[in-house]
Amino acid sequence: MRNDGRVHNQLREIHIDTNYLKHPEGSVLITVGDTKVICTASIEDRVPPFMRGEGKGWITAEYSMLPRATNQRTIREAAKGKITGRTMEIQRLIGRALRAIVDLKAIGEKTVWIDCDVIQADGGTRTASITGAFVAMAIALNKLHTDKRIAKFPIIDFLAATSVGILDNQGVVLDLNYVEDSAALVDMNIIMTGSGEFVELQGTGEEATFSYSQLQQLLDVAQQGLMNLFEIQREALGEIADKIQPAAEGQA
Amino acid sequence: MRNDGRVHNQLREIHIDTNYLKHPEGSVLITVGDTKVICTASIEDRVPPFMRGEGKGWITAEYSMLPRATNQRTIREAAKGKITGRTMEIQRLIGRALRAIVDLKAIGEKTVWIDCDVIQADGGTRTASITGAFVAMAIALNKLHTDKRIAKFPIIDFLAATSVGILDNQGVVLDLNYVEDSAALVDMNIIMTGSGEFVELQGTGEEATFSYSQLQQLLDVAQQGLMNLFEIQREALGEIADKIQPAAEGQA
Amino acid sequence: MRNDGRVHNQLREIHIDTNYLKHPEGSVLITVGDTKVICTASIEDRVPPFMRGEGKGWITAEYSMLPRATNQRTIREAAKGKITGRTMEIQRLIGRALRAIVDLKAIGEKTVWIDCDVIQADGGTRTASITGAFVAMAIALNKLHTDKRIAKFPIIDFLAATSVGILDNQGVVLDLNYVEDSAALVDMNIIMTGSGEFVELQGTGEEATFSYSQLQQLLDVAQQGLMNLFEIQREALGEIADKIQPAAEGQA
Amino acid sequence: MRNDGRVHNQLREIHIDTNYLKHPEGSVLITVGDTKVICTASIEDRVPPFMRGEGKGWITAEYSMLPRATNQRTIREAAKGKITGRTMEIQRLIGRALRAIVDLKAIGEKTVWIDCDVIQADGGTRTASITGAFVAMAIALNKLHTDKRIAKFPIIDFLAATSVGILDNQGVVLDLNYVEDSAALVDMNIIMTGSGEFVELQGTGEEATFSYSQLQQLLDVAQQGLMNLFEIQREALGEIADKIQPAAEGQA
Amino acid sequence: MRNDGRVHNQLREIHIDTNYLKHPEGSVLITVGDTKVICTASIEDRVPPFMRGEGKGWITAEYSMLPRATNQRTIREAAKGKITGRTMEIQRLIGRALRAIVDLKAIGEKTVWIDCDVIQADGGTRTASITGAFVAMAIALNKLHTDKRIAKFPIIDFLAATSVGILDNQGVVLDLNYVEDSAALVDMNIIMTGSGEFVELQGTGEEATFSYSQLQQLLDVAQQGLMNLFEIQREALGEIADKIQPAAEGQA
Amino acid sequence: MRNDGRVHNQLREIHIDTNYLKHPEGSVLITVGDTKVICTASIEDRVPPFMRGEGKGWITAEYSMLPRATNQRTIREAAKGKITGRTMEIQRLIGRALRAIVDLKAIGEKTVWIDCDVIQADGGTRTASITGAFVAMAIALNKLHTDKRIAKFPIIDFLAATSVGILDNQGVVLDLNYVEDSAALVDMNIIMTGSGEFVELQGTGEEATFSYSQLQQLLDVAQQGLMNLFEIQREALGEIADKIQPAAEGQA
Repeated sequence: MRNDGRVHNQLREIHIDTNYLKHPEGSVLITVGDTKVICTASIEDRVPPFMRGEGKGWITAEYSMLPRATNQRTIREAAKGKITGRTMEIQRLIGRALRAIVDLKAIGEKTVWIDCDVIQADGGTRTASITGAFVAMAIALNKLHTDKRIAKFPIIDFLAATSVGILDNQGVVLDLNYVEDSAALVDMNIIMTGSGEFVELQGTGEEATFSYSQLQQLLDVAQQGLMNLFEIQREALGEIADKIQPAAEGQA
Repeated sequence: MRNDGRVHNQLREIHIDTNYLKHPEGSVLITVGDTKVICTASIEDRVPPFMRGEGKGWITAEYSMLPRATNQRTIREAAKGKITGRTMEIQRLIGRALRAIVDLKAIGEKTVWIDCDVIQADGGTRTASITGAFVAMAIALNKLHTDKRIAKFPIIDFLAATSVGILDNQGVVLDLNYVEDSAALVDMNIIMTGSGEFVELQGTGEEATFSYSQLQQLLDVAQQGLMNLFEIQREALGEIADKIQPAAEGQA
Repeated sequence: MRNDGRVHNQLREIHIDTNYLKHPEGSVLITVGDTKVICTASIEDRVPPFMRGEGKGWITAEYSMLPRATNQRTIREAAKGKITGRTMEIQRLIGRALRAIVDLKAIGEKTVWIDCDVIQADGGTRTASITGAFVAMAIALNKLHTDKRIAKFPIIDFLAATSVGILDNQGVVLDLNYVEDSAALVDMNIIMTGSGEFVELQGTGEEATFSYSQLQQLLDVAQQGLMNLFEIQREALGEIADKIQPAAEGQA
Repeated sequence: MRNDGRVHNQLREIHIDTNYLKHPEGSVLITVGDTKVICTASIEDRVPPFMRGEGKGWITAEYSMLPRATNQRTIREAAKGKITGRTMEIQRLIGRALRAIVDLKAIGEKTVWIDCDVIQADGGTRTASITGAFVAMAIALNKLHTDKRIAKFPIIDFLAATSVGILDNQGVVLDLNYVEDSAALVDMNIIMTGSGEFVELQGTGEEATFSYSQLQQLLDVAQQGLMNLFEIQREALGEIADKIQPAAEGQA
Repeated sequence: MRNDGRVHNQLREIHIDTNYLKHPEGSVLITVGDTKVICTASIEDRVPPFMRGEGKGWITAEYSMLPRATNQRTIREAAKGKITGRTMEIQRLIGRALRAIVDLKAIGEKTVWIDCDVIQADGGTRTASITGAFVAMAIALNKLHTDKRIAKFPIIDFLAATSVGILDNQGVVLDLNYVEDSAALVDMNIIMTGSGEFVELQGTGEEATFSYSQLQQLLDVAQQGLMNLFEIQREALGEIADKIQPAAEGQA
Repeated sequence: MRNDGRVHNQLREIHIDTNYLKHPEGSVLITVGDTKVICTASIEDRVPPFMRGEGKGWITAEYSMLPRATNQRTIREAAKGKITGRTMEIQRLIGRALRAIVDLKAIGEKTVWIDCDVIQADGGTRTASITGAFVAMAIALNKLHTDKRIAKFPIIDFLAATSVGILDNQGVVLDLNYVEDSAALVDMNIIMTGSGEFVELQGTGEEATFSYSQLQQLLDVAQQGLMNLFEIQREALGEIADKIQPAAEGQA
């Protein structure tokens, strides 16, 4: 039994509230157990300098935590005057993952800015951010599409993320909360498409290592969780979900 | 008639949801029309270096906006690596105002950290922050008091803030929303105690000026609004409100 | 009696030396008791990016103190690599105040840079900066006008600033020096036009509050001081003063 | 055939020159094809503040590139005043990986500083850094051990890293050079212990995805390459290599 | 004839106003032609960390220019958030030079902070800073000595600086103003003690070079100018000058 | 006898390995005793903003040390977020010196970026950098010339640098190593052209002074060392050396 009563391959309770904020083109509040993240998607009508003239769009992400999202107050990065390595890693991960399931040519020279702001943290904030950001981005890009600012709906597959890990006495577990995450010997984040393809796999031994057979177990449990997440995303998106058709698009 | 249908001396609809977050000692979500601010109060068991050894507490505030709290996405201060002048001004204002109604000696050498994070902005974010932060701080200090970590409940009066302004065709109005704020000739923020004393008064002509008699009208309208705000705070605080007794304490 | 022998509504001795420096278009050394500030006005033939194409000018200010302007040496902001909140607040205040009495359209797309460098501080450095900067700016804009680089003299009224405060035993006092400022329960800065209109009003209780009737007294005493300051400015400006005619221009 | 004539599961030519520099406790120049990295290990007799009093050691890494390590000159991070996200990610990765095969308790409250400076880059700089840093660290820790400053040789297993990827026409390839890396659809870095356990696995689709069976192929090819790397490390370390005995130590 | 009517080996008109500011332990306004620098000396009762426990004092300097000290407004280093290379070079030079003529052991563990703030620039600001800073420091150290906070007057010789240069048509000239400095082929700053010993010599060809015999001429002309500067310093210091006795102290 | 067995006017053993790196247009590894510096020259097809439109080229330099180039690990400037004053001084010196022997008009609007990265330090890193950078630059400019991207070989003379100093018991010595440099009373860097003209002369008393006759001795010993350095450069450059003909070009 896990510290919050779940079985080893059980996700926490998950909600995705869409159109959570008034101003952004797309926004959600995603709740994964006690982890809460506001994800927004904003459309800018230009791309960064290094991409100009290529006729392609760009997707970039920023991530932050409120100071009291955590149990102990953390110092704001703005107050420190610089962004931590952890934040940079997460920002790069979110952007890279979302770019894998969008036809950037279909967007044209536009940038999708993703903002993930954690208002309450209890483990798994980066995977919750990706799962929520996908929905916020789909809403924003659907708005572009229905406004006829882009000719083709550019999302070619679902995308969600979860964590799996190895705990000392319990073996492989799904969707670690903060207490579990702190104790885990091995921690793995998996980002997958609705078609079951990997987009990103990051497994880390925390002053520990893991074997080939443990890797297989981690991947199995993660896949089960991800299939549930796609269902929750589909429900949150309603009719927009039907526009996402990987079969018709093929895969790179 | 104002752009949102209010009469000139009418506040927007206001809600204060208490204990909004899990981790902080005190927290609220304050909603003033479409302006939404998460205010938290955190207790740290030491004071900044310049105050050590004086046996007094300290209250300090930080303020930030989510990038898409606004209509156009704003760049994060963490990404820019520095805090804007506007943010600094607001942070200093919030801290100074709260210190005026707390008996800092009764807190002992502790710091109350106030964090005001605007998740949606439609004018009046700094006054909403102060009104909400007061409630979050009262909850946190009450927790200290009921946990017997301080001997005396240290808040000596209510504190709330609102804005008033002069619009070109409509004269003096209360609690300006973003559209009104952008058009106002004169903009004034007033912070007052429950006993009707001023804590801070900041009136600014925006490429305009104002006369002595206009000042009197601004102060009158503001005072009416502030009386309503004290009622809303009292309701949000419930039993804690009864501990705040300015009459018994006297005023500096 | 005050600590320097003045009566409660008496300004310190004030001098404004015009054309104090060789290079700037306008410059003064303003002396208010032991407070000394070099104020310069520089003209740049363009406006900041956010204002381009509007056909209007801009006025912006920077403020700094020499490290030994103060009794204890203060660390340079350049050495710290960032500007303090206090400096930012003052810079914004000076710029905003000066913009209120200048016809920005009459300047065209030019920027007036105001620099206020405190070489000796004894309280009231921000109000001395505003009073001195007005004169430096008038000299610089007059040069533009006599050089026929602008068609109309753009200053539409005088502008000066002073402080008033409430001291524990002495009540309301005018133009606080450093010792008084440190002890004041209430501190108010008032910026006014030559026509007696308010441009900015900033009253702050320092861990204290103030009543409506105290506010009236503060405003009365401030107004007397400001009338004296306009005379001193008029004298410093000589013939240029005659070009400033609020009556002919009207007021926003 | 690959662009440099290798077969798909062939490493580039690899050299590890030990004791490359005069001052550091441990240093190597590692050459992987045209990629050249100076790796040094320095011992400091204290740990960072967050670890003091735990009786354990710490290992931390910094990574940098000379401006002309690359084909186009890159701007120095010191000149920009901040470290890029990519550099932070690599630094964190190197430190985390090395900590997995060291008994930190056996070091006591000391810090091992790893510096990896790329003097010439042709792909795979992060994996070359890890493989080289392992050797530099082993030399430095051996010095500590032979100087009797630590009682037990603290390295419990070998550690090396390589990359694998999927190229459009060639499928899975080992140890990608820069041209291959730029074109790869999928890029994976694998860090493994001499016992064949995973320490870190980072697989990324670059605007692409990969299937479960492709993952298996990537892991197989990587493992072959890593076995070669352990031999090269063993040879470079000479007698020190014999002190590394994972069997006797067991694995977490 | 030079552009301001001087002969080739003639200094500009020089004044040193002592005790120019109220707060610092020592202060002067030094005027060299149109170059004006406020130099202050402040005493701090501790030394920087790297010198603690050695029983010696330290002298360090900071240098800055007001934005409109120059013909074109320069951006403040505080606004840029960093100090330029030129400023750092000058700061290091001033500190190093002053340390050469002070018996640091006689000061004990105190720091002398020198601040040189250029309020008007017309060439030679670094040499004027050194010449003025010497006097400000002598006043401050004399105050320490007469207050019996140090047992021995610690200044062992006079110190002054000037510039010499080679102009295209005029050959070697002394004490270059801004126009001359901009045109000079060779520019040399010389810092000398009252006994005629060199402390620092910095000669630079500006996209040009100079021969051994030109070097001799530059040194000769500089020495004449420096002898005048020592007289001016002696006069400014009055009785304090008599305490400076290099003969009795000997030379390192 | 000196601490490494040299006589007073003897250089350390010097090697210049040309084309040390693959990517840069010009590169060397210069070894001066135990001091080792990688010097590269990169060509950029534009000049900095302040020089555009003048039809002239620019030469600029950056300098850095690996953290373990030194005996004690030094903190990276990138990690500190700012460049030290020492680094800035050296960077400015290298750039200025190289510009003195290049016909910048012959380069056209191109920038030569010099990077000097010290991988091992034992005194004299700035002079080794200049001596090595000259060779790297000559190789890069020769490539431009043979590629017919510039019409004329633009280097008009050789350039090398060395240090001389005064040691307590040994008097004047040439090419100081780290131990000597730390103990020197006087330290002088001399940069000279192949024709024997001075480009830069920087002599500094380290809490000491030096006389006119000591200066002459320092210059004599330096000149002997520099003549040797020109021979070593000539050999390293091979045929390129013959293109450098100061006699035919004349001197500014």
